[in-house]
Amino acid sequence: MVSVTRITALAGGVGAAKLLRGLVHVVPPEDLTVIVNTGDDVELHGLHVSPDLDIIMYTLASLIDEVKGWGIANDTFNCLEMLGRLKRETWFKLGDKDLAIHIVRTQLLRSGLKLSQVTAELCRMLGVKARLIPMTDDDVQTMVQTKHGILPFQEYFVKRGAKDEVLGVTFKGIEGAKPAPGVLEAISQADRIVLCPSNPIVSIGPILSIPGVRSRLREAEAYVVGVSPIVGGKTIKGPADRMMAGLGFEASAYGVAKLYSDFLDHLIIDKVDEALKERIEELGIAVTVTNTVMRSLQDSIELARKVLGAHENA
Amino acid sequence: MVSVTRITALAGGVGAAKLLRGLVHVVPPEDLTVIVNTGDDVELHGLHVSPDLDIIMYTLASLIDEVKGWGIANDTFNCLEMLGRLKRETWFKLGDKDLAIHIVRTQLLRSGLKLSQVTAELCRMLGVKARLIPMTDDDVQTMVQTKHGILPFQEYFVKRGAKDEVLGVTFKGIEGAKPAPGVLEAISQADRIVLCPSNPIVSIGPILSIPGVRSRLREAEAYVVGVSPIVGGKTIKGPADRMMAGLGFEASAYGVAKLYSDFLDHLIIDKVDEALKERIEELGIAVTVTNTVMRSLQDSIELARKVLGAHENA
Repeated sequence: MVSVTRITALAGGVGAAKLLRGLVHVVPPEDLTVIVNTGDDVELHGLHVSPDLDIIMYTLASLIDEVKGWGIANDTFNCLEMLGRLKRETWFKLGDKDLAIHIVRTQLLRSGLKLSQVTAELCRMLGVKARLIPMTDDDVQTMVQTKHGILPFQEYFVKRGAKDEVLGVTFKGIEGAKPAPGVLEAISQADRIVLCPSNPIVSIGPILSIPGVRSRLREAEAYVVGVSPIVGGKTIKGPADRMMAGLGFEASAYGVAKLYSDFLDHLIIDKVDEALKERIEELGIAVTVTNTVMRSLQDSIELARKVLGAHENA
Repeated sequence: MVSVTRITALAGGVGAAKLLRGLVHVVPPEDLTVIVNTGDDVELHGLHVSPDLDIIMYTLASLIDEVKGWGIANDTFNCLEMLGRLKRETWFKLGDKDLAIHIVRTQLLRSGLKLSQVTAELCRMLGVKARLIPMTDDDVQTMVQTKHGILPFQEYFVKRGAKDEVLGVTFKGIEGAKPAPGVLEAISQADRIVLCPSNPIVSIGPILSIPGVRSRLREAEAYVVGVSPIVGGKTIKGPADRMMAGLGFEASAYGVAKLYSDFLDHLIIDKVDEALKERIEELGIAVTVTNTVMRSLQDSIELARKVLGAHENA
């Protein structure tokens, strides 16, 4: 039986959304707070786009295009086509329905609301009952150092297809960034903290780097459970494996465990990584071995159950 | 033979666009300058929308939805649908392709460009060779006084369907508005000035009310030819007839002639209004009687030829 009541998750994009989709089938969504990376946020055509917030919001609102893993299902791209005709850059694939979110977000931000307030309002309008909080209301930009120069994350990731070797990652503006209202409280007051299977460097990394967040996690009373985004030395999606390797970390579930070892109680790893169990346990981290690849809603639900029941398996 | 070289037109929306579409088939579009009403401009969802500029731009770029008379052909409304879901007002029907124009216009305005510069840039990107100039780069808002209160033009026209009796019309901000760069020169240097068949109160009216424009028209050397938007006491489209009546003007081609009598040399009226010819001539205005209802491109071309050849018929 799952007795956890208040759950706080740290989340990036696609992998996180898949786990959270399972979680809201297992616990009342009102019990779930999700702290979301905004280091990938980007201004496009004068509009504020928050890719990770959107993926999670669309997923929890059952709007997500499950085939692509981003954007809204059955969307069209007629505005983007015309933007191309107007000689605008079109490498970031903004759908027509999707655009409505960015238009309203931008308008509300310009009216003086903070990103956390705008996010709450968008969630309310889309019927998302879980509480989504951006990691910060301040401007933080994930910058990726490559041989091609220092690129904003979306230019590295979407425009150039994550093809460049990663020489370094920095979070511009992080020193002065404050956690958004509710972030630290959600960590302190949680019964369970979940590290979603997101890129530890550029998705979870920025959240942990907001001054005050990491120390709050270390002090948290809640049992802290992570799901490794690296399975058999590879990521399901995205460049986490190559990025970790490029930065001198082991691209494995063990490497993930090490990055979180100062606050992580438990790591869920895939069956293919069973051999890593003992090494991870030597870091003082309990391990559950299970299927972590979420190909269906049922997979997400089962993995969510493992996350919530992890302490019984410690 | 048409010997006119530099043509300057004063224009509102749909009726103007239909005549201009004919004109660019009769003369090189590079010879045409169009001064366009911006009193109907409106900010929607944080985006700057210029309905009259758009109708003319889309028409001259062959993008216009000819059935509706506004917007872009084969457009979709997916963003608008989602804006509705986000509890935004959706009475102004923004298409997805159409939105790209407003997004880029807004972005360029925010970057510091003037509306006249942005318009030139949009026209260049869409391949419009005629020169479109907004009447002013300043903020002028056409306000319509009704029993329901004083409404911005688009609220009176689109949101409430032009159903209210019009008690008065004012142009907010007009006293301090300057003609956009090129407006006065286009009037002085023209060989032919054309008053398009647009609403004389709320389409041509704001242009004439920009300080300096009306006196420049009176002093212009060019032959000034208008086309009556009122045919048989009715407008083809829009509320000009009821608006003129409500404000105490005669809702007829004669009423139009009177409104322009201080600078108009020639008015083209419809065959159904032949009986008004003598009264208009008594104002010192020459008259051509012809078919003025443009149901096809051929109609537009023939009317454009009448406009250009009007002086031979005076």
